[in-house]
Amino acid sequence: MDKIKKLQQILTLNQIDAYIIPTADEHNSEYISAYYKIREYLTGFTGSAGTLIITQNKAFLWTDGRYHIQATKQLEGKPITLMKQGLPNVPSIEEFLIEHLKKGNTLAFNGKTMDASFLLNLKEKLPNINIKADADFIHEIWEERPELPFSFLFKLEEFYAGKSFKEKVFELRAELLTAKADAHILSTLEDQAWLYNLRADDIPHTPVFLAFTFITDNECHLFIQSKKIDKIIEKYLKENEIILHEYTEFYQYISQVNDKHILLDFKKINYAIYLAVAEKNQLICKQNPTLLLKAIKNKCEIENIKHAHVKDGVAFTKLMYHVKSSIQDSTMNELSVTSLLQKFREQQESFIDISFDTICAYKEHGAMMHYKATEDSNVSLEPNDFLLIDSGGHYLDGTTDITRTLALGALTDTQKLHFTTVLKSVIALSEAVFLKGVKGINLDILARGPIWKLLLDYKCGTGHGVGYLLSVHEAPNGFRWQVVPERNDSAELVPGMITTNEPGIYLENKYGIRIENEMLCVTKGKSDFGDFLGFETITVAPIDLDAIDIALLTKEEIRWLNQYHQKVYDTLSPYLDEEEQSWLKHYTREI
Amino acid sequence: MDKIKKLQQILTLNQIDAYIIPTADEHNSEYISAYYKIREYLTGFTGSAGTLIITQNKAFLWTDGRYHIQATKQLEGKPITLMKQGLPNVPSIEEFLIEHLKKGNTLAFNGKTMDASFLLNLKEKLPNINIKADADFIHEIWEERPELPFSFLFKLEEFYAGKSFKEKVFELRAELLTAKADAHILSTLEDQAWLYNLRADDIPHTPVFLAFTFITDNECHLFIQSKKIDKIIEKYLKENEIILHEYTEFYQYISQVNDKHILLDFKKINYAIYLAVAEKNQLICKQNPTLLLKAIKNKCEIENIKHAHVKDGVAFTKLMYHVKSSIQDSTMNELSVTSLLQKFREQQESFIDISFDTICAYKEHGAMMHYKATEDSNVSLEPNDFLLIDSGGHYLDGTTDITRTLALGALTDTQKLHFTTVLKSVIALSEAVFLKGVKGINLDILARGPIWKLLLDYKCGTGHGVGYLLSVHEAPNGFRWQVVPERNDSAELVPGMITTNEPGIYLENKYGIRIENEMLCVTKGKSDFGDFLGFETITVAPIDLDAIDIALLTKEEIRWLNQYHQKVYDTLSPYLDEEEQSWLKHYTREI
Repeated sequence: MDKIKKLQQILTLNQIDAYIIPTADEHNSEYISAYYKIREYLTGFTGSAGTLIITQNKAFLWTDGRYHIQATKQLEGKPITLMKQGLPNVPSIEEFLIEHLKKGNTLAFNGKTMDASFLLNLKEKLPNINIKADADFIHEIWEERPELPFSFLFKLEEFYAGKSFKEKVFELRAELLTAKADAHILSTLEDQAWLYNLRADDIPHTPVFLAFTFITDNECHLFIQSKKIDKIIEKYLKENEIILHEYTEFYQYISQVNDKHILLDFKKINYAIYLAVAEKNQLICKQNPTLLLKAIKNKCEIENIKHAHVKDGVAFTKLMYHVKSSIQDSTMNELSVTSLLQKFREQQESFIDISFDTICAYKEHGAMMHYKATEDSNVSLEPNDFLLIDSGGHYLDGTTDITRTLALGALTDTQKLHFTTVLKSVIALSEAVFLKGVKGINLDILARGPIWKLLLDYKCGTGHGVGYLLSVHEAPNGFRWQVVPERNDSAELVPGMITTNEPGIYLENKYGIRIENEMLCVTKGKSDFGDFLGFETITVAPIDLDAIDIALLTKEEIRWLNQYHQKVYDTLSPYLDEEEQSWLKHYTREI
Repeated sequence: MDKIKKLQQILTLNQIDAYIIPTADEHNSEYISAYYKIREYLTGFTGSAGTLIITQNKAFLWTDGRYHIQATKQLEGKPITLMKQGLPNVPSIEEFLIEHLKKGNTLAFNGKTMDASFLLNLKEKLPNINIKADADFIHEIWEERPELPFSFLFKLEEFYAGKSFKEKVFELRAELLTAKADAHILSTLEDQAWLYNLRADDIPHTPVFLAFTFITDNECHLFIQSKKIDKIIEKYLKENEIILHEYTEFYQYISQVNDKHILLDFKKINYAIYLAVAEKNQLICKQNPTLLLKAIKNKCEIENIKHAHVKDGVAFTKLMYHVKSSIQDSTMNELSVTSLLQKFREQQESFIDISFDTICAYKEHGAMMHYKATEDSNVSLEPNDFLLIDSGGHYLDGTTDITRTLALGALTDTQKLHFTTVLKSVIALSEAVFLKGVKGINLDILARGPIWKLLLDYKCGTGHGVGYLLSVHEAPNGFRWQVVPERNDSAELVPGMITTNEPGIYLENKYGIRIENEMLCVTKGKSDFGDFLGFETITVAPIDLDAIDIALLTKEEIRWLNQYHQKVYDTLSPYLDEEEQSWLKHYTREI
């Protein structure tokens, strides 16, 4: 029997009117390990974001603009209504529940995978419904469910991290003091990996480990599967007076905490954590202090990250040379190019992993912003049209995220117009100079403006923060024209933050164009009028000159591109062989 | 004895720790009649915005960036500390009060001139202080206080207003119904003038009348001094079933209202109104529905406003011709130019008044954003440097606001760079195309960006809404990079809204440059990606080509300027004499 039907029978049996299945683990992670991919298992939709709501006779899936095209395809023929988030007249999940749940109805979910703030908000707006927060029905349906992830922890040395655990925990405790808190629960994986200077491989392409942390003025408790810890790490933890507990003991442990002033970010804990501590303690709801500490990279991290980008640029340039110079002769397809790019990255020193599933999307596949080639979808490349490649690497010296769109043959005028417009967008945002205090919502128009002038748009943000050997999507910085509270990516831009700059044009069934550079926020000067900031582009790879209509660029834009390409050549050529060098020379020539 | 000392004695006598004197009347007006200019009387600071707080031994004056330079001068030598709003480390009024008032202290003010929302917020944050809301000490100090304003009402005919009172009140009642309100108090003067299609002259350069309105499903009560109403208006009010009361009866009348659901904008009523109705009624705090109805101009209004701009352009162009062509020969000064401009406006059909005190500011005076020439400050013009003229008119067919900065002689390269940069800013914002939903904070960078790139800034918004024969500053639309809640000018931009585009560069003791056009928000097209909007510039007057460094403009900017100047010439030349025409031909030539 169909999985969703089975679940609906369980709902009917338990008199549950709506059951929420978010894309979530117990740590409010963006990407989740296979064990938690319940929504994907039930719907077949493989995107990284989406929320399924099942009623006794219907099913609805919400997903954002990045996945509208993909979800439409993957839900085809299934009894699931696609709710395209962000489009007019599509209710939000909250609006939908408020409309559909009547007094006395029961809403159920597994509280451990439910965002606390979402639920607290909802409860306020729906005071007359019953809530069942411990409804974990999935084990009844999912027979061959994967195990919880397992990987060994490894230490990120201080010459990579720039700060020791002791320095970081000192800063964290100072923030707790300021917030008048004497305890803190940290469940987000990136924050913990950052704090401890530890990494692992529990989530695909995100080098973190499942753990919880409970921290007070003088104690630091780490809850983690002990089998993930070898002798070296055990010694390191002991030296740093970190008290170890088993992962499974966490909820039990915190439910006994009382009379504390606990700093908690309700948006970053699950509802079960909230329930465990809410009654016996004072809760101080504030953003996790580690979020901003982590986002503002220190000098050592910045220096390292720039090295990582050189390596990444070398890998990408080798690929670009290979693809563009052999497109006429050899047989390539999306998957082979994906493998080759990974091979070039693996050749780089201190490479750990790719930082997300490579998007290697030919022609109309490029219009799906987060397309991932499979054996089924894989197509051969021909000497025409666009190939969009969005990829990144994790190195000990940092995480990268880069997109280039390659012209595989002659392009139409419209294609060149679109590519050149995306380039204009990238340049305009790169060149921004702004007063301290500015946020991404103030600057988004610089990138989106040229594309809007063509009456086109990309249905996603213009850019996101990037972690250091952590998640490739990191809060709280980003570029977006409307604040989306749950994304928390509209913070004030601060020197040391790293944000991607990735506008695009996506034409369904035709092609996708995206150019993505990472930019470091830097100071630009000080005057009587205030402190001015700007960006330094740290991604180093050629932007395909074959796709540009020079006549559409201003003198300033041409100057930017020439300077950028000069830097690309100077930086990368020492690491390339002669053929690659002369190719790069041509592809970074002055225009 | 010094006025402030006198007041401080009264405070000591009454055991009051802090006394607030805002720049306000009983109607939350931006500009106020002489009767209410208490802050100006006490401080000598003549700017249009500012709040004075007096303690038993100190005095503090807050004012915004438009007035920092002016206030510094006008407060010189006085025992008043200037608080430059918007600068880092300057506390807001609220922050200041929270810091200075201790438990048991008394804060006093006249509740009729105190914004209700400000006070309700403050009370929440300072629950342990005493509040004295009826402290009107000014009559004890101000001996020759002006009378309340008096002017006769006149009707704005429907071919000007585009909609009858009956249509407007029908729309208003529909909005009340949607908000589940059965009553509404309107105290803001522009909203009432708009609703009734009536105008007067109670506030300098703002054609409104002091009044209050109480409206229900089926009744409309207008509280106004009956002496302002002649036979014609009396008949008009009667025909429209508007029930008349004396102005002074208002507070007494509403204090007897009970069991109503009253829609009230706490930000737009005074605290005495709040106190009169809060206990016996349900208050629904929402923006006055008239605000948006009024801001989105109807077709008839738009057509009229464009006519008003042609007349205003003719007046300004005559002035510009006169000033620029006779600067070498004749003696002119700031006041004579101000008079001459007013004369040219008065020659235009259906001219009513200037829409605000003309800013005619030569050289360093231009750096004071809201400079007003007086006999004392007046200077002669010489054939060099910049003359900044910011002015506007009220016509039966609409209100205008225009700024041009004229080169009176040869300019330095830096002056030309600054002027050309301001022009680039104006053009960039004019050319914006954007998705429905965008607000001023999204677009502000387009105008501010080129100026920020020079590490300069203007300490004010980039633009504001403009009323129709109403206030020259009209909410809720505007351009600003940070939301300033009390200004309420960060609303979504909607076709039919009119907003100024007026970036500038202000160098203290040197010069000021501002170029200001009004722009109508219009639809730009529709695609798969959404509904796109943009602007149509409706101000028609030459931008001084003598001040432009053409080499700094892009091809697109030159195209914009040439097209704009072509339109200026085509539109205005029929109304000019031969000499003026040939001058305009030259000053609108293709570059």
